[in-house]
Amino acid sequence: MKIQGALGYSQNEIFQNERLLMIHADDAGLSHSENIATIDALQKGSVNSYSIMVPCPWSPEMMEFAKNHPQFDNGIHLTLTCEWEKYRFGPVLPIKEVPSLVDENGHFYKKRELLKKHASNEDVRKELQAQIEKALAFGVKSTHLDSHMYSVASRPDFLDIYKDLGRIYDLPVFLNKQLINEIGLDSDKCLDENDRVTDHLFLGSFADFENGKLAEYYDDVLDNLPVGFNVLILHPAFDNLEMQGITVNHPNFGSEWRQMDFDYFTSEKCRSKLQKNNVQLVTWREINDALKNLRD
Amino acid sequence: MKIQGALGYSQNEIFQNERLLMIHADDAGLSHSENIATIDALQKGSVNSYSIMVPCPWSPEMMEFAKNHPQFDNGIHLTLTCEWEKYRFGPVLPIKEVPSLVDENGHFYKKRELLKKHASNEDVRKELQAQIEKALAFGVKSTHLDSHMYSVASRPDFLDIYKDLGRIYDLPVFLNKQLINEIGLDSDKCLDENDRVTDHLFLGSFADFENGKLAEYYDDVLDNLPVGFNVLILHPAFDNLEMQGITVNHPNFGSEWRQMDFDYFTSEKCRSKLQKNNVQLVTWREINDALKNLRD
Repeated sequence: MKIQGALGYSQNEIFQNERLLMIHADDAGLSHSENIATIDALQKGSVNSYSIMVPCPWSPEMMEFAKNHPQFDNGIHLTLTCEWEKYRFGPVLPIKEVPSLVDENGHFYKKRELLKKHASNEDVRKELQAQIEKALAFGVKSTHLDSHMYSVASRPDFLDIYKDLGRIYDLPVFLNKQLINEIGLDSDKCLDENDRVTDHLFLGSFADFENGKLAEYYDDVLDNLPVGFNVLILHPAFDNLEMQGITVNHPNFGSEWRQMDFDYFTSEKCRSKLQKNNVQLVTWREINDALKNLRD
Repeated sequence: MKIQGALGYSQNEIFQNERLLMIHADDAGLSHSENIATIDALQKGSVNSYSIMVPCPWSPEMMEFAKNHPQFDNGIHLTLTCEWEKYRFGPVLPIKEVPSLVDENGHFYKKRELLKKHASNEDVRKELQAQIEKALAFGVKSTHLDSHMYSVASRPDFLDIYKDLGRIYDLPVFLNKQLINEIGLDSDKCLDENDRVTDHLFLGSFADFENGKLAEYYDDVLDNLPVGFNVLILHPAFDNLEMQGITVNHPNFGSEWRQMDFDYFTSEKCRSKLQKNNVQLVTWREINDALKNLRD
């Protein structure tokens, strides 16, 4: 496997015949439903990487799983927002230490816009570092860093902190031009030749979900995967009382959608498509090892 | 209604023909399952009072319900322990401010014994006061104070703090001799003539649960209720994935038990027994009003 090309190292023909894919479950730790569905999708489905929201109440369960199952690729889903209405959480640090990150009740803001407006970069750095330190102290051997709602791309200084934490902890960080541009930054200005960038990101859209075309979208992704390093992000959970409570009034990435994600990526159809299309699954651990070999 | 006798005011014949009962749901706020079951049991069942565990991740949902439904009696279930294995929570205060209350991961101890051994009374007072203040700041009009796992009876100094907080916030506190003695204090030494003590406490036992005799126990309580101020404590929740996850390896007050509690106290049988036996349901709000009238 020629990882270096996948990470933008050398923009050449290396990937003409190679389609690398990471099938990544975001939001582990959010709830028990999310945890059990993620664990099932790793152990019985096609998901091969996931990341944990350390500030969430169910993160100890998922960190324990990560500790006891180091064979699975696992990252820290750095969290600065809580988009839910009635299920609220906040920083791992005392709110007095990071007052610019929280609303009047001491919880994270629901929207990136509020974070962008109110957060100081000192508080962002302190809190993100504390999340990483908390996972490490728990005994989790993390393989990568990524970001909930990709809120690290809310401001250029946040993105710099994010990349810097990757350097400090020697962990790859998830970077993608399309996503950075969608959140509102200019990826040409924010990224340079030292950044390892994923080539293509695939994420279901609310329109596809609403129109009942999510499985069709995933079919299409797996059947027409471009060469390069591709990342597909899903949010597996069971559509049960707990998830319905968490995602109330928020069908976008809501409980029903998450069940569909779980169903698709544990299906036989998904497995056979990956095989038929000769997709090579890749983890952050493999990428990390390849990068280290390159450096040595 | 002659409340004063029920609270130990005058030990006379007032209650010869009066059986007062509070049917109290503990642990609201613990989880979404607990919240929805508690709300159902209040609105459709025979439960007439409940209390909220402020430090729990689902407490905002329950505090919002309390705020929007002030007609229901609601207390603060002061919390200093977290008995669950994988679902962990800790103080509302920064752990640096109350270091004697938490384990190595910053969560509450699982057992009262550890709390008794390690906690300073300064930290207990600060944390309990912070829990009350958090509920008040949220806009909840609380009617009473009680205590999760009755951990306030772990040490005489904790019980004094608990009673003192009742005076400070002008709220009745749940006191019961039997429970105090069971936890390990001497109720004769801890209580005096100023304390308003509930006459009888009814709480299902693990033996009854294991032997499938919980409903039989509740039948018996309702059919043979003594005169005086009786409190029956239950823990309603749905036996679903979330509660099974929370109570894993802990069948005592576990998920299955909580479903049985919900089923019984929303049943027609329970309702008709209350009617047939001429049981008078009473809330802390009514008791509080009666106590205030006595004082005026």
